[in-house]
Amino acid sequence: MTFRQRHLLGIEHLGPDEITAILDLAQDYHRQNRSDDKHGTALAGLTQVNMFFENSTRTQASFELAGQRLGADVMSMQMQASSIKKGETLIDTALTLNAMRPDLLVVRHPQSGAVGLLAEKVECAVLNAGDGRHEHPTQALLDAATIRAAKGRLHRLTVAICGDIAHSRVARSNILLLNRMESRIRLIGPPTLIPAGAAEWGCEVYDDMREGLAGADVVMMLRLQKERMDGGFVPSEREYFYRYGLDAEKLAHAAPDAIVMHPGPMNRGVEIDGTLADDINRSVIRQQVEMGVAVRMAAMDLLARNLRASRAAA
Amino acid sequence: MTFRQRHLLGIEHLGPDEITAILDLAQDYHRQNRSDDKHGTALAGLTQVNMFFENSTRTQASFELAGQRLGADVMSMQMQASSIKKGETLIDTALTLNAMRPDLLVVRHPQSGAVGLLAEKVECAVLNAGDGRHEHPTQALLDAATIRAAKGRLHRLTVAICGDIAHSRVARSNILLLNRMESRIRLIGPPTLIPAGAAEWGCEVYDDMREGLAGADVVMMLRLQKERMDGGFVPSEREYFYRYGLDAEKLAHAAPDAIVMHPGPMNRGVEIDGTLADDINRSVIRQQVEMGVAVRMAAMDLLARNLRASRAAA
Amino acid sequence: MTFRQRHLLGIEHLGPDEITAILDLAQDYHRQNRSDDKHGTALAGLTQVNMFFENSTRTQASFELAGQRLGADVMSMQMQASSIKKGETLIDTALTLNAMRPDLLVVRHPQSGAVGLLAEKVECAVLNAGDGRHEHPTQALLDAATIRAAKGRLHRLTVAICGDIAHSRVARSNILLLNRMESRIRLIGPPTLIPAGAAEWGCEVYDDMREGLAGADVVMMLRLQKERMDGGFVPSEREYFYRYGLDAEKLAHAAPDAIVMHPGPMNRGVEIDGTLADDINRSVIRQQVEMGVAVRMAAMDLLARNLRASRAAA
Repeated sequence: MTFRQRHLLGIEHLGPDEITAILDLAQDYHRQNRSDDKHGTALAGLTQVNMFFENSTRTQASFELAGQRLGADVMSMQMQASSIKKGETLIDTALTLNAMRPDLLVVRHPQSGAVGLLAEKVECAVLNAGDGRHEHPTQALLDAATIRAAKGRLHRLTVAICGDIAHSRVARSNILLLNRMESRIRLIGPPTLIPAGAAEWGCEVYDDMREGLAGADVVMMLRLQKERMDGGFVPSEREYFYRYGLDAEKLAHAAPDAIVMHPGPMNRGVEIDGTLADDINRSVIRQQVEMGVAVRMAAMDLLARNLRASRAAA
Repeated sequence: MTFRQRHLLGIEHLGPDEITAILDLAQDYHRQNRSDDKHGTALAGLTQVNMFFENSTRTQASFELAGQRLGADVMSMQMQASSIKKGETLIDTALTLNAMRPDLLVVRHPQSGAVGLLAEKVECAVLNAGDGRHEHPTQALLDAATIRAAKGRLHRLTVAICGDIAHSRVARSNILLLNRMESRIRLIGPPTLIPAGAAEWGCEVYDDMREGLAGADVVMMLRLQKERMDGGFVPSEREYFYRYGLDAEKLAHAAPDAIVMHPGPMNRGVEIDGTLADDINRSVIRQQVEMGVAVRMAAMDLLARNLRASRAAA
Repeated sequence: MTFRQRHLLGIEHLGPDEITAILDLAQDYHRQNRSDDKHGTALAGLTQVNMFFENSTRTQASFELAGQRLGADVMSMQMQASSIKKGETLIDTALTLNAMRPDLLVVRHPQSGAVGLLAEKVECAVLNAGDGRHEHPTQALLDAATIRAAKGRLHRLTVAICGDIAHSRVARSNILLLNRMESRIRLIGPPTLIPAGAAEWGCEVYDDMREGLAGADVVMMLRLQKERMDGGFVPSEREYFYRYGLDAEKLAHAAPDAIVMHPGPMNRGVEIDGTLADDINRSVIRQQVEMGVAVRMAAMDLLARNLRASRAAA
């Protein structure tokens, strides 16, 4: 089998064949999710636990539905209202949960690297649902699945990632994935929101939207993450939209069949014009959400296969 | 089949035959819920999502149990702790959820009409679990199921609805249902808590409990919804109980076999005397809760049949 | 069958044969929980409801996983965000839930005796998941299962229970269980944290750790429950650790093969040295958590058997 991972911690660990394996399987689950029989047995007998140390309606819901539809026993824990308050450390919490014998552990945490640290301590497969500014691999995979469904391929595309790149784990995972799949990446945003070293990742950098979008096949907008900007440059929403918000006029500089993406939740009128976001001829934002469930099902299915195989071998 | 609806948004859309279809099926589920085998397969393979924008322990629990017992994959979302906080609109939230391909969506929302609006945007069946002062159809249906079980019929009964009618979606849905089933409705309460136009709905209006209860077969008490009274008349609890609270003395004016109902949660000593609420010879308040699960199972089962049929036809 | 209970309200109601029946069955579930097929059917068709009036990540998670793995429909209710706020009484809440026909009701409540009171009002089996300072029977059972797995027996052991005994329902349930199984119990702690009447329970009392631990086979540390100390003696953490915190030096006074236990969550550096807590040669703290799920599965399975039998007989 192509997929060799024990955990899904970041795109950085995945080869192109592994990415393709997830996307191919996701395509099957995408079809199943549109049928009247969404409930399968790939995870039957296994336990999935979701630990979200940051609130996230859509990502948590997506993982929950994915696990239920695969037939797992699924438990979601609200970690705010938890032992953390009573002074327990992250590692204690992880070891406690590990002792309850989950098979799949889905973790979101505000600190970069926290999920990887946790994965070293437990015996189950760990999925990173977003850790600080580090990675958000299932988001990049669902973006890739959406691009592939719309464009028929992932290689030799020009993909513009626009906005607050410095604070974005979504951007980071997408850059890693698109690099691996041999697409050409442009980063567009105010210099203060472009990370140092972007050029070393093989990205072209622009601070003018019209220049950066010229001829792009895919336009990925990012959420302006005000909550992550501590002390740095905070643009006014109005000025931000004027310069970096996507509207029909700026999009006209991209390829005529360019698609528009956003990881959500959107700030309408800040990063993106509301009418454009809803334009089903250009925007694939709803497709991204739909692919999210399918991609998470595929990733968990593949991890569970490896888990069962490694246990059978032990 | 008698039940033709795609959604369950309000009693206003239901014909008498459709109401009867739900109540008949609820009777079967009521029996099943008392057995050792409460888990069936009517919703197997389907996904039910509960979105409660207002807290409600009992209604949410009732829908959750109903869906689980029908074999659905059930996910409940706490919408307070959600994307709404990050500035997403109701429609964005709905479209995002829709993209995850639920089959049944149960929604409670503080604004009248919000659930209907949402139903226009999604592809699944929507159940209104209470929207502002508009409707709460499953409450009226469970009340009807309870009355029918106690009285053997729904027509030619005298039903007194007492208390804060103006702020009550429960009252509104009950009036619509009882009208459709040809019962005689009396509204009893202080004039400030009786909605304008009550007479046009074919209701008799009283502000004296003893007069209004004379000969009634069913006495429906409502919860005094202080949280909904903004700026208007707020009675003292003591005076309210003296004039409009139900006790044994006031109930003595009703028919000798009159039943007492309350949608819960009760304010004992405000709308209703605690001893009377617990009197199993008169009060059917617990039966209402029990019927709630059965009626919701019946409604979701019937909606799912229509959903499957319309998909098969497409 | 050996297990005769309708509810699991406290160790005080269990005979030694009943305790052994739970521990024996837990051993089977412990094995199953380590396999790839953790999902069984012992509770299939039944409904389990968890009502936690106090937050508890680990206990609630443990009961939730236990029920899911037994095939029940499981619903957990956050009772803080509930009808309680709207003025409903505990009994009203219980009767409301009872009307929804759960088969197993798991309850945690801050008041001693509240769970027993509730059990009198409902028709299902009730499990006490901790009530005030009264009992926490599944904790004592999982402790016993852990001791038996490590020591091969429960009788003729010397068990030292250390710390804040006065505020601890865990200590109370453990004392009752160990007494019943004919172990020798020592209580060690500052006199203000030892309950009056400890001697009458057949316990030896010490206020010096080294004396109390001398030759002990099992060292049970308790959590310092500052939140329960109202107005009484509150030691500084530093002084508390110096006198009553477990570290390698104090543990050296116990038997060479003594095991170290803690119900969690731990205050590292207050009740227990962090390195010792993680020492897999001495500490069985993770085993306790793992046994927790197995013991809860066993208890719910046995209660459900009695429930089905009593219904079949009715």
